[in-house]
Amino acid sequence: MQKHNTTRELVAEGLGTLLLLATVVGSGIMAENLAGGNDGIALLANTLATGAILAVLITSMGPVSGAHLNPAVTGAFLLRREIGFGKAGAYCLAQLLGALAGVALAHLMFAVDVVQFSGKTRTGFGQRLSEGVATFGLVATILATRESRPSAVAAMVGLYISAAYWFTASTSFANPAVTVARAFTDTFSGIAPRDVAAFLVAQLIGAALATALFGWLIAPSGRK
Amino acid sequence: MQKHNTTRELVAEGLGTLLLLATVVGSGIMAENLAGGNDGIALLANTLATGAILAVLITSMGPVSGAHLNPAVTGAFLLRREIGFGKAGAYCLAQLLGALAGVALAHLMFAVDVVQFSGKTRTGFGQRLSEGVATFGLVATILATRESRPSAVAAMVGLYISAAYWFTASTSFANPAVTVARAFTDTFSGIAPRDVAAFLVAQLIGAALATALFGWLIAPSGRK
Amino acid sequence: MQKHNTTRELVAEGLGTLLLLATVVGSGIMAENLAGGNDGIALLANTLATGAILAVLITSMGPVSGAHLNPAVTGAFLLRREIGFGKAGAYCLAQLLGALAGVALAHLMFAVDVVQFSGKTRTGFGQRLSEGVATFGLVATILATRESRPSAVAAMVGLYISAAYWFTASTSFANPAVTVARAFTDTFSGIAPRDVAAFLVAQLIGAALATALFGWLIAPSGRK
Amino acid sequence: MQKHNTTRELVAEGLGTLLLLATVVGSGIMAENLAGGNDGIALLANTLATGAILAVLITSMGPVSGAHLNPAVTGAFLLRREIGFGKAGAYCLAQLLGALAGVALAHLMFAVDVVQFSGKTRTGFGQRLSEGVATFGLVATILATRESRPSAVAAMVGLYISAAYWFTASTSFANPAVTVARAFTDTFSGIAPRDVAAFLVAQLIGAALATALFGWLIAPSGRK
Repeated sequence: MQKHNTTRELVAEGLGTLLLLATVVGSGIMAENLAGGNDGIALLANTLATGAILAVLITSMGPVSGAHLNPAVTGAFLLRREIGFGKAGAYCLAQLLGALAGVALAHLMFAVDVVQFSGKTRTGFGQRLSEGVATFGLVATILATRESRPSAVAAMVGLYISAAYWFTASTSFANPAVTVARAFTDTFSGIAPRDVAAFLVAQLIGAALATALFGWLIAPSGRK
Repeated sequence: MQKHNTTRELVAEGLGTLLLLATVVGSGIMAENLAGGNDGIALLANTLATGAILAVLITSMGPVSGAHLNPAVTGAFLLRREIGFGKAGAYCLAQLLGALAGVALAHLMFAVDVVQFSGKTRTGFGQRLSEGVATFGLVATILATRESRPSAVAAMVGLYISAAYWFTASTSFANPAVTVARAFTDTFSGIAPRDVAAFLVAQLIGAALATALFGWLIAPSGRK
Repeated sequence: MQKHNTTRELVAEGLGTLLLLATVVGSGIMAENLAGGNDGIALLANTLATGAILAVLITSMGPVSGAHLNPAVTGAFLLRREIGFGKAGAYCLAQLLGALAGVALAHLMFAVDVVQFSGKTRTGFGQRLSEGVATFGLVATILATRESRPSAVAAMVGLYISAAYWFTASTSFANPAVTVARAFTDTFSGIAPRDVAAFLVAQLIGAALATALFGWLIAPSGRK
Repeated sequence: MQKHNTTRELVAEGLGTLLLLATVVGSGIMAENLAGGNDGIALLANTLATGAILAVLITSMGPVSGAHLNPAVTGAFLLRREIGFGKAGAYCLAQLLGALAGVALAHLMFAVDVVQFSGKTRTGFGQRLSEGVATFGLVATILATRESRPSAVAAMVGLYISAAYWFTASTSFANPAVTVARAFTDTFSGIAPRDVAAFLVAQLIGAALATALFGWLIAPSGRK
């Protein structure tokens, strides 16, 4: 029975991350097509779509798998020993495969080449600092909200990412599976493959710092 | 007494779908009038209005009729045997008549010809795949959320469609009654009559796949 | 004691309607100042501000006075005999005085003439039908939601008006106190004084129809 | 133990205000970079980011420190004798230091000079009246909502500020720590240092008036 349950969890993580990437990449293409060259309008649309789908996916998939949809989040729970090493690895693999499939699905819907590589440079200290801050904030939001109001986690993640698309210089990838997958699209939301590794490092540092700080800040009632 | 109750249900489905179409078509006209030729701004406004009214209509009409407002949703519940064949047919008819009336009402409010036929081509594999994906996601959202958090269904449908307007190449009709009715408006939200049938087929396939997959994924607590 | 209570209710109605009009008129001025001639962007901003403040005001003032903030809503409750004639009249007067003060406050904040008269023509069958539909939908939303989910009324009114700003040809005044007060501003949200009376008639018809229809549709559990 | 608890409170106030300012300033820079000279689009993005992060921060930090994030709010609770003088001072200091650090962080992320002084003039009676009104409304929203629906305070503050960015002529700073910190950025959201003092005075008057009026209007149930 446990095995059956795990299959469901991995399908939920994979399908959820697939729909997340289809939204990020697909709405980026649509936005660029329609915005008439105004990137402010394009990013507003990209933000609206991404924030909304995050709230939907976490509400829908949360009871099945926890709806991490993000190796940095799975990593935070691993650090907290709330998930085992083997299961965490399986989650990350499902997220990565789902993310890649989501990019391909967006390309199929918009009738562009299925396999692409991004030429968009995203480099420099500011961009990497942005990814560290963005992932710190995301993990902090999740850890704090599930203590303070568990039913609000889905909405808060959607709102947090909506803000972070604008307050970071990198538009807040904040998710290693998303980052790798976005290297495979040469559209609005892409990132050049050579810039991926530094983003991943920054994201993991941000996630680890948030896990440490909020482990202390949001103490269980007993420790207050 | 049961009959009286059914009358109320059909009025709720018809009136709800009427207001949904008045919003989709009316806000499309207003958006195109005001956006100064920038379709990105126009679709943002169309998205905002549609997502908002869906949340309102499902919250308002939910306790009366379930607020399907969509033959694909009624079809999913028919597949799940939660609604009988006769009542499902009556729901779909009420939805279709409401949808047609809603388009006419939008035309009257904006002082354009009441009866129109769209000349906007929406064809090709990408558009049809988009409709399948959009309807899959909509039915999945409904089936998952009413298990995980029933009080959030209205908000989640509004947010899901807000995202899907942007992440699909077709702007996510995801509703057979809406699709047929939008053939009768030659404005922003129209679809040429000859492109309707393929959209309907794609929507029904997407709805059926979601019903099957989520019947397994979102198992009742007992089967976990 | 009852008298003291009534004083609070009238202050809440007056102050709430004041802040509503300050928002509608003020955000209209700001939006027109910043939108660079694109009325689509201006109406998006005006919509965002109005929808948001409605949710805030109804949540804040609801427990004090019911937060009608609108003679059409007070009129609906009068038709339903949930409020007496004398108190309804006092509510409407407080709303009207608050609305006029709100327009003046917006003018003071934006450093324009405090007393103005609008030159913006809003006439014709489509505009008046729009006001009837808009007010019908508003009263319907309130009557249905307070039965189905009372805690959601504030959010639903905010979302409904956000949609109605776009799906009606008149941008949905839907409120007699708001309509009269907006005759006193020659800015984005104004209405020429000669066009006010027809709007009021349309609004009252819409409110009365919604009160009648939803009195039947949303039956108390006992009558189902 | 009490001391440990206070440390957590001050860290929450400081970190929360830091992230608030990083969002206000960072999203302002991003918005101006992308909006192609259309300040309407830029302020829409700035509004979206600020409103969203306020809801997130208050939900996340509320249970730790109350999530004032604003000396005017701390001042209101001091007037109401819900917080002592010493603790209120420590809160304000943590907020101010966090705010300054948040501006620096935004500058680092966007790779601009860390220390800057704003050249943006914000003066005149209308601007100062706007700050008084904005802060009055913010404190009123908090005092009313925590009585009427405590779980909605975070969302209502986010929505209120989203509206106030547009309905006031000053774009609603409504927060002394935010005002001082924004003197240190010569970007979209800055304020010239010479204009800060008048804003602070207006904010404190608005906060005091709201505290007085709503102390009477929102009476505890016993006094009704």
